[in-house]
Amino acid sequence: MSKNKKNTAAALPAAPGLKIIPLGGLEQIGMNMTAFEYEDSIIVVDCGLAFPEDDMYGVDLVIPDVTYLEENIEKVRAFVITHGHEDHIGALPYILQKINVPIYATKLTIGIIENKFKEHGLLETTKRKVVKFGQTISLGAFRVEFIRTNHSIVDAAALAIYSPAGVVIHTGDFKVDYTPVFGDAIDLQRFAELGKKGVLALLCDSTNSERPGYTPSEKTVGVAIDHIFQEHTHGRIIIATFASNVDRVQQIINSAYKYGRRVVIEGRSMVNVITTAAELGRISIPDNTLADIDEINKISDKKLTIITTGSQGESMAALSRMADDVHKKVQIKPGDTIIFSSHPIPGNEKAVTGVINKLLEKGADVIFQDVHVSGHPCQEEVKLLYSLVHPKYAVPVHGEYRHLRAQAKIAQDLGIPKERIFLLRSGDILEMTPEDAKINGRVHVGALMVDGIGVGDVGNAVLRDRQKLAEEGVIFVSYAIAADVGQLVSGPAIITRGVVYQKLSESEELMNAAEEIAYDAIMRCVDSDHTEENYVNSAVKDALTEYFWKRTKRRPVVLPAMLEV
Amino acid sequence: MSKNKKNTAAALPAAPGLKIIPLGGLEQIGMNMTAFEYEDSIIVVDCGLAFPEDDMYGVDLVIPDVTYLEENIEKVRAFVITHGHEDHIGALPYILQKINVPIYATKLTIGIIENKFKEHGLLETTKRKVVKFGQTISLGAFRVEFIRTNHSIVDAAALAIYSPAGVVIHTGDFKVDYTPVFGDAIDLQRFAELGKKGVLALLCDSTNSERPGYTPSEKTVGVAIDHIFQEHTHGRIIIATFASNVDRVQQIINSAYKYGRRVVIEGRSMVNVITTAAELGRISIPDNTLADIDEINKISDKKLTIITTGSQGESMAALSRMADDVHKKVQIKPGDTIIFSSHPIPGNEKAVTGVINKLLEKGADVIFQDVHVSGHPCQEEVKLLYSLVHPKYAVPVHGEYRHLRAQAKIAQDLGIPKERIFLLRSGDILEMTPEDAKINGRVHVGALMVDGIGVGDVGNAVLRDRQKLAEEGVIFVSYAIAADVGQLVSGPAIITRGVVYQKLSESEELMNAAEEIAYDAIMRCVDSDHTEENYVNSAVKDALTEYFWKRTKRRPVVLPAMLEV
Repeated sequence: MSKNKKNTAAALPAAPGLKIIPLGGLEQIGMNMTAFEYEDSIIVVDCGLAFPEDDMYGVDLVIPDVTYLEENIEKVRAFVITHGHEDHIGALPYILQKINVPIYATKLTIGIIENKFKEHGLLETTKRKVVKFGQTISLGAFRVEFIRTNHSIVDAAALAIYSPAGVVIHTGDFKVDYTPVFGDAIDLQRFAELGKKGVLALLCDSTNSERPGYTPSEKTVGVAIDHIFQEHTHGRIIIATFASNVDRVQQIINSAYKYGRRVVIEGRSMVNVITTAAELGRISIPDNTLADIDEINKISDKKLTIITTGSQGESMAALSRMADDVHKKVQIKPGDTIIFSSHPIPGNEKAVTGVINKLLEKGADVIFQDVHVSGHPCQEEVKLLYSLVHPKYAVPVHGEYRHLRAQAKIAQDLGIPKERIFLLRSGDILEMTPEDAKINGRVHVGALMVDGIGVGDVGNAVLRDRQKLAEEGVIFVSYAIAADVGQLVSGPAIITRGVVYQKLSESEELMNAAEEIAYDAIMRCVDSDHTEENYVNSAVKDALTEYFWKRTKRRPVVLPAMLEV
Repeated sequence: MSKNKKNTAAALPAAPGLKIIPLGGLEQIGMNMTAFEYEDSIIVVDCGLAFPEDDMYGVDLVIPDVTYLEENIEKVRAFVITHGHEDHIGALPYILQKINVPIYATKLTIGIIENKFKEHGLLETTKRKVVKFGQTISLGAFRVEFIRTNHSIVDAAALAIYSPAGVVIHTGDFKVDYTPVFGDAIDLQRFAELGKKGVLALLCDSTNSERPGYTPSEKTVGVAIDHIFQEHTHGRIIIATFASNVDRVQQIINSAYKYGRRVVIEGRSMVNVITTAAELGRISIPDNTLADIDEINKISDKKLTIITTGSQGESMAALSRMADDVHKKVQIKPGDTIIFSSHPIPGNEKAVTGVINKLLEKGADVIFQDVHVSGHPCQEEVKLLYSLVHPKYAVPVHGEYRHLRAQAKIAQDLGIPKERIFLLRSGDILEMTPEDAKINGRVHVGALMVDGIGVGDVGNAVLRDRQKLAEEGVIFVSYAIAADVGQLVSGPAIITRGVVYQKLSESEELMNAAEEIAYDAIMRCVDSDHTEENYVNSAVKDALTEYFWKRTKRRPVVLPAMLEV
C-alpha cells in the first residue's frame, strides 16, 4: 500500500480520476445506487429503495439521500438502470422529483418504471429511453454499453461504462444461466472481449458470494413445477412467487397449459408486471389460458391454477389473505395444493411459516422445498466472471458486509492483490486513474424514510418516540390553571393508550390513583406559588413516572398539558 | 372414524377415561404445558413460557392461561418437568403463585428452577423434589417414571405416565445421541420394554419432524470446535452459544484446556447456568481454567477463550454489546476468531446477521457454519422411537402445526391408522380408555402477556393501541370550555409524539395549521351551542384525522381532552 501511495501522489494530478461513489446498497440488500463521475459528467447506475427494518415503525419504504447529486445537479446526465426490481428502481418516483434527468434501460425495465410513474403521475414530466443489448449510449464523458445477463427478471443488463480513465463493468444483479427461459444466456463472450482489451474495475454482485458452487438454471424449477402438476391432478394448484419473476410465471403457465388448466393471476403487483411483460412480448401466454378471478367458480378445481403474490408472507398480499380467510374470491380447502416458489427473504421467515401453518390447518397440501432458485451468482459464477473480465480493481457490490467480504476473498483467491480490492461503504469516493486507485474522501449519504407522502420527515427522533409509545404506551394529563391567581381550576384529567386495559377493575383503580398522584403534584406547585408551565409539567411527569414504575414496572410516556385560563 | 364413534358410546361410560389436555405448546415452539387428568387427579407436565411475537410491543414474555387448573385446583397433584429450558420451566414463577403444588424433576432441572425461584423470592414457599432416572413417583391416580433421554441440556427426561387407563409416554424434548458428552445415551431399552408391555399413547417431540435423517451427536460439534482451536492459535477465540447448552460449554472448555487457553464465561444467564451445573457435577472444569472477566487484559490473546451469550443476536446480550462497541470489558479487534455455535431461531435471522456484519467490520474472523447440532429428533429418530414404543395412539407435540403434521405423516407411514393419530390444538380434551380415544370437548386456554409485573393486563386491545401508536404516532389536543357560558376559554393546544420531527420548519407549519383546524372545529360546536364533551371531542378528532390524511397520508391517533372550568 505504501508503494501505491507514492504512485498516487505522482499520478492523480496528471490525469483526472474517475470517481465511483456508491450512494447506497453496501450496507444492506436494497437501495442500490452508484454515481460515476468524471470531470463535469455524472451518471447514476440504479435508483433503488429498501424495505423498512423491523424497528422502523410505520415507515413504508426507505430511499437514498441524494444531497450529493442535488449539489452537483448540473453534472448529472442520466440514470442508467440495470433491471426492473424495486431495490434498483423503487426510489425513482421520489428522486426524479429532484433530479429530473433521462432514464436509460432495457425494454421490460422501462415498462415497469412506466407503470410506477403512471401511479405517481410522472409520465409526462420525465424522459425514458429504451436501450438494446449491445447498444452504447453517450452521456457526457461516458459511454455506456448494455450487456445481456440473466437474473430472476427478464431484460437484466450489466453495464460497461467507458470513461477516459478506463472501462468499468457493473454487473447489476446476475446469474449465469446457460438455459434461460426467455431470451439468450448471459453474453459471456462480450465480457471476455472486454476483459481481453483491459478492464479497469469490476463491480460485481455479492449476494450469494458466501455460497459455494453454481446457482441452478431457472429451467430446473420449471421441471420441478411440471412434476407437481403431473402428480397433483385433482384439486386446484395455487402458486405464490415474486410478482417480478416473469420467467417463473412463464414456466407455471407452460405447465398449466400442458396439463389443461386455466390460469388466474391474483395480486395487484403480479397483475401489473405480467400485463406489462405480455404487452412487451416478454412472456407468451396461449389463447384462452388466462381466466379472470371472477370465473373461478365456473372452472372445475382440477382445471384451475392460481398464480398469486404473498410468497413472503406479507400480511396484505393475496395468499396471506387466503390463509386468513379474508380473501374475497378464493377460499382455501382440502385438496388444494399450494406451492411457495420462493425462499423467505431474511427477516420474513416467521411470517412465511405462519402462512404455511394456516394453509395446512385448512387441509391444503403445501410444498415449499426445491421449487425455487436464486437469481444471484454463487462462488463459481463469480469466479467465472472475474476470470473473463480480469479487472485491475475489484469492487464487490450488492450485499451486506459479510457478502462483500466473501467476494473479496474470492477475488484474492483469483490472484487480485489485496490492495486492489475495495470494500467500500456508501459515501466513499473511490477515485481511479489507469495507474492507481484509492478512497479519496467521502460524500454525504443517508437513508430517508418515506411515510405516507412525507419523505425524510420521519427521522430517528420520531422513530425513537414511536418505539417508546409502542413498548410502553402513553399517558396524557391535562389540567387548567387560572393565570391570574395561580390556582388549579380544572383537571387533572388522564387519558391513556397502550398502557393497561382500562376496562379491568384493577386498571380503573390504577388510573384513579394516578389522577390523585397528578393532583398532589400540581397542588404542591400551586401551594408553593410555582405555576410556571414547565415547572408544573415536569413535577407531574416525575410523579407519574415514579408511580407507574413502582406499581407496574413500566415507564409509559407521560405528556402533561397545562392550559391557562 | 364412524366405527370409532360407535365404540366410544359403548366404552366411555363403562371405564372412566384418561384425559390429556394440552394447555399450550401446540401452536408454536414455546409455552409447553400438558395436563393429565384421571378422576380426581391432575398432573401437569412442564410449565413453559413463550417469547413475545414481533407485534407484541413491550411484552416481556408470554405464559399459558391456567384457568382450567385454577378451577380444578383440588385435583392438581404436581408439576412434572422434563428439562430445564425456558419453554418448559419459564412460566413456573408466575403460575406457582396460583397453583402452588410440588415440582418434580431431575437434578440439573431442579437446580435451574431454584435459580429462577431465588430471583422471584419463591424458594421458601414452594416444594421441589429431585427425581432420578428410573425412579417412579406416585401422584394420586398416576405413577410417573423418569426415563433418560438426550437433548441440548443435561438431565433431560422422558416420562412414562402410568394411569388406570394405560401407560402414556411423553418424550419431552429429545434426540438420540449414542455418544453424549455427559452421562449415558437415551435409555432406548426402557422405551422398548415399555413398548413390549403395551403403551396406550406416545406424545413425541415434533420440532424436526420435517427433516430427514438423524440429528448428529453433540460430540461432532466438539470435534469441529477442536479443529478451530487447533487452527486459530494466535488471537482470542470467542464463542457464543445458548446459556443452557451445558454440554457445548463442556466441549469448549475441553478444547480450551487442551490448547492451553483460559476460559472466561460472560453473560448473566451463561454464568448462572454454568455455575449451577458445576455445583451439581454436570460439568467438569479443570482447576485454573476459569478466569474472571476482569483478568482478560492480563492474559495474552492466544491464551484466552471467552464463552458468551448472544448467539441469537439479542440486543442486550454480551456478544451484541461487543459488536456494538458498548461492552465494558471486551473490545473486538482484528485477530479475534468468533464462533456462533448455534443456529438462528426462526425470527432471529436478521438480528444474527446484523451482529455478524458488525464483527466482520471490526476485522474479526467469524465462523457460523457447521459448529452446531440440533437437540431435537429428525425423522429417523422419530421412527426409531415409535418403533420401540409401538403406541396405540400417536399425539405429536412440541411444534407448530407444520411440524405436528409432518410427524403425523411419519406415524402413518409406520402403520398407525389415521384415526389413531391426533393433531390436537391447545385446549382440546383428548379422552382415552384402553379401547378408544376421542377429542371430547375443550377447556379454556390462552396466552397471558407479561409486561413488567403485570400478568394479563396487556391484552389484544392494548396491543392494538400500541401498534397504532407505533405506526402513526399520537396527537393530543387539550382545550378548556367555560361550563356555564359554553365558551372556549383556553386552547386548543396540541402535543404530538411519533408523528413528524417537530423541529423541521414544515412540521411547525403543519402543526400550527392543525391547531387552527382544531380551533375551527371547536368553534363550530360552540357557535351551535353543542359543547357536550363527546360531541366536541369527536368533531375535533374527525377534523384532525381528515386534515392529517390529506396533508401526510397518515392517520395519527387523535386524542382530544376537554376541560370544563
